[in-house]
Amino acid sequence: MADQYAQFGEDKRLSEIPALRWEEPPEGPVLVLLDQTRLPAEEVELVCTDASALVEAIRSLAVRGAPLLGIAGAYGVALAAVRGFDVEEAATALAGARPTAVNLAVGVRRAQAAHRDALARTGDVRQAAQAALAAARTLHREDAEASARMAGHGLALLDELLPGGGHRVLTHCNSGSLVSGGEGTAFAVALAAHRAGRLRRLWVDETRPLLQGARLTAYEAARNDMAYTLLTDNAAGSLFAAGEVDAVLVGADRIAADGSVANKVGSYPLAVLARYHHVPFIVVAPVTTVDPDTPDGASIEVEQRPGYEVTEVTAPQVPVAGAGGGIPVAPLGTQAYNPAFDVTPPELVTAIVTEEGAVSPVTAEALAELCARSRQVTIS
Amino acid sequence: MADQYAQFGEDKRLSEIPALRWEEPPEGPVLVLLDQTRLPAEEVELVCTDASALVEAIRSLAVRGAPLLGIAGAYGVALAAVRGFDVEEAATALAGARPTAVNLAVGVRRAQAAHRDALARTGDVRQAAQAALAAARTLHREDAEASARMAGHGLALLDELLPGGGHRVLTHCNSGSLVSGGEGTAFAVALAAHRAGRLRRLWVDETRPLLQGARLTAYEAARNDMAYTLLTDNAAGSLFAAGEVDAVLVGADRIAADGSVANKVGSYPLAVLARYHHVPFIVVAPVTTVDPDTPDGASIEVEQRPGYEVTEVTAPQVPVAGAGGGIPVAPLGTQAYNPAFDVTPPELVTAIVTEEGAVSPVTAEALAELCARSRQVTIS
Repeated sequence: MADQYAQFGEDKRLSEIPALRWEEPPEGPVLVLLDQTRLPAEEVELVCTDASALVEAIRSLAVRGAPLLGIAGAYGVALAAVRGFDVEEAATALAGARPTAVNLAVGVRRAQAAHRDALARTGDVRQAAQAALAAARTLHREDAEASARMAGHGLALLDELLPGGGHRVLTHCNSGSLVSGGEGTAFAVALAAHRAGRLRRLWVDETRPLLQGARLTAYEAARNDMAYTLLTDNAAGSLFAAGEVDAVLVGADRIAADGSVANKVGSYPLAVLARYHHVPFIVVAPVTTVDPDTPDGASIEVEQRPGYEVTEVTAPQVPVAGAGGGIPVAPLGTQAYNPAFDVTPPELVTAIVTEEGAVSPVTAEALAELCARSRQVTIS
Repeated sequence: MADQYAQFGEDKRLSEIPALRWEEPPEGPVLVLLDQTRLPAEEVELVCTDASALVEAIRSLAVRGAPLLGIAGAYGVALAAVRGFDVEEAATALAGARPTAVNLAVGVRRAQAAHRDALARTGDVRQAAQAALAAARTLHREDAEASARMAGHGLALLDELLPGGGHRVLTHCNSGSLVSGGEGTAFAVALAAHRAGRLRRLWVDETRPLLQGARLTAYEAARNDMAYTLLTDNAAGSLFAAGEVDAVLVGADRIAADGSVANKVGSYPLAVLARYHHVPFIVVAPVTTVDPDTPDGASIEVEQRPGYEVTEVTAPQVPVAGAGGGIPVAPLGTQAYNPAFDVTPPELVTAIVTEEGAVSPVTAEALAELCARSRQVTIS
């Protein structure tokens, strides 16, 4: 069952509301989510007291973003265990809540495995529940630490590439604390620059069709008091031409073994514009985003999403996962081309920044070496 | 006074409704407009029986687009004259209905001058009114003829550049019969290719923030039975990368003496993408768009439009000229960068197609020669 906290009073700073947190009030443990479908119009918290409420929250996109979904899934398993529900059943429901979200299933399995192991070892359901919760907390902490390390490496790279300081950074889509256990990927780098007093301007692409830039990145920039400006995706060209962009920072959904980067549609044209204007194009993503089994960009299958996302405009309050329901802007029956992602070839990527350091130039060898190093760290 | 015709019955083909027409029913002459603020949701005609109704239609953007505004303005003067209103007063109101629309004032003055001359020459108000109407009709016919010639020259150029036929053309914003006395500029070329059986696909950029592509170009493509597909502006990169674009066709708001092209924001990034992918980028515009007094791209002042166009999304039925009133998508107080146009330097423009022929490569000398030739034609 999910419950909604009322909107926060003025005494609570916006920046204190995390995307997700585990709480243990007297009436029993809960997972509290910031309802992302209501942003930026309203800040409403969604309180999940069982796994089915979390499944619903995942389906309605109240919680979203690959790393955050993994963490949410792990906490969901812990919630079922701690509250005495059927853990295996909850895990199956959670892992299947969004079929294409790999991180979700990975997070669920991690907590589930910890639960099974502890149960087999101790035969004690309470100890098993605590093991699941510990696994979720570890995943959460690891993700936050990876964010912090990416931010550090990314800022060092920015400072090296742009020795003058006063960075004017362009970003696309949402890659901040709303998709992460920490402060995110590309956005975390911009935030680190802001905190170090070296961010002059964050240019925020609105990111059609789902407007994650306008709705979510602008919200995160506002609540961190960053100097930011919103623009339509097609206005980035004018900014480059005017010399107003020092670097582009984007996240990644998947990185092929050759360094080709799949990210939100609209990233590739920014890479071409950046190259044409001799501006660094920097990808920030955890090492787990690199997929050694995908040899190159051509092997990345790009999800084609429903045309109504383009032929309609959806208000932020309406969950975008539904079958339309937005305001029609194109003639009825209009066919739409609506890829979710595009692919940027390695020759257009100045650097890939991970929690293990930056790779520049981007080559298959350098990426493979980075992944090997990361596995060593994990094993040690 | 303006009246609305009911929506058309099924017997009336969509393609038969012009953006503007002069009619002389028994109850007196009228100017009938297709209300563009209602497109594509509804096809409603607005019947203007006097100049003040037309002023209102111009202000509310029921009629828009530089060449069409000029024609509307000229007919407005004729309407006042034929119906016995004060012509000078009507002309002043019409010319000032949208202050930055140069074509509007030019069209109004042309009919006004014809009216004054005839009145001075004959002293007969009826003859003077007919002279104003004749001037409006001439302007209308000239614009339609220029469209037809641009379409012919443009199609010949496409066939020359792309000898294989089966053109897949990408266009941005709206440049068809809704902004012209004829079939427009860039859109007219695509339409000519379609009629000649040589258009395989028209890719329609939605054109944020005002969505003229989604609302108007898609509507024009649909009513001409063209094979078209709508996309978000940032998805064009994927199309280029996949080799799905054979040529880009755009209009122009102003062309500097050196060949720099100011057009709807989002045109310049397409020019950069086209260059990177070795795809022709073709500008289609009447010779009057070339401004010899603007030496280069840097001299073109770009209009910055209200931020709410970006921070809100406006439904097609709500006139976009108002002070917001759309659905907020960004946090309150978000600052927006919202240039109306961008500027493409001549080195990225494969050709400029005018009613007098095409210029390729685009140089100041070739453009000057074209303008001189055009003036000769006008004088002869």
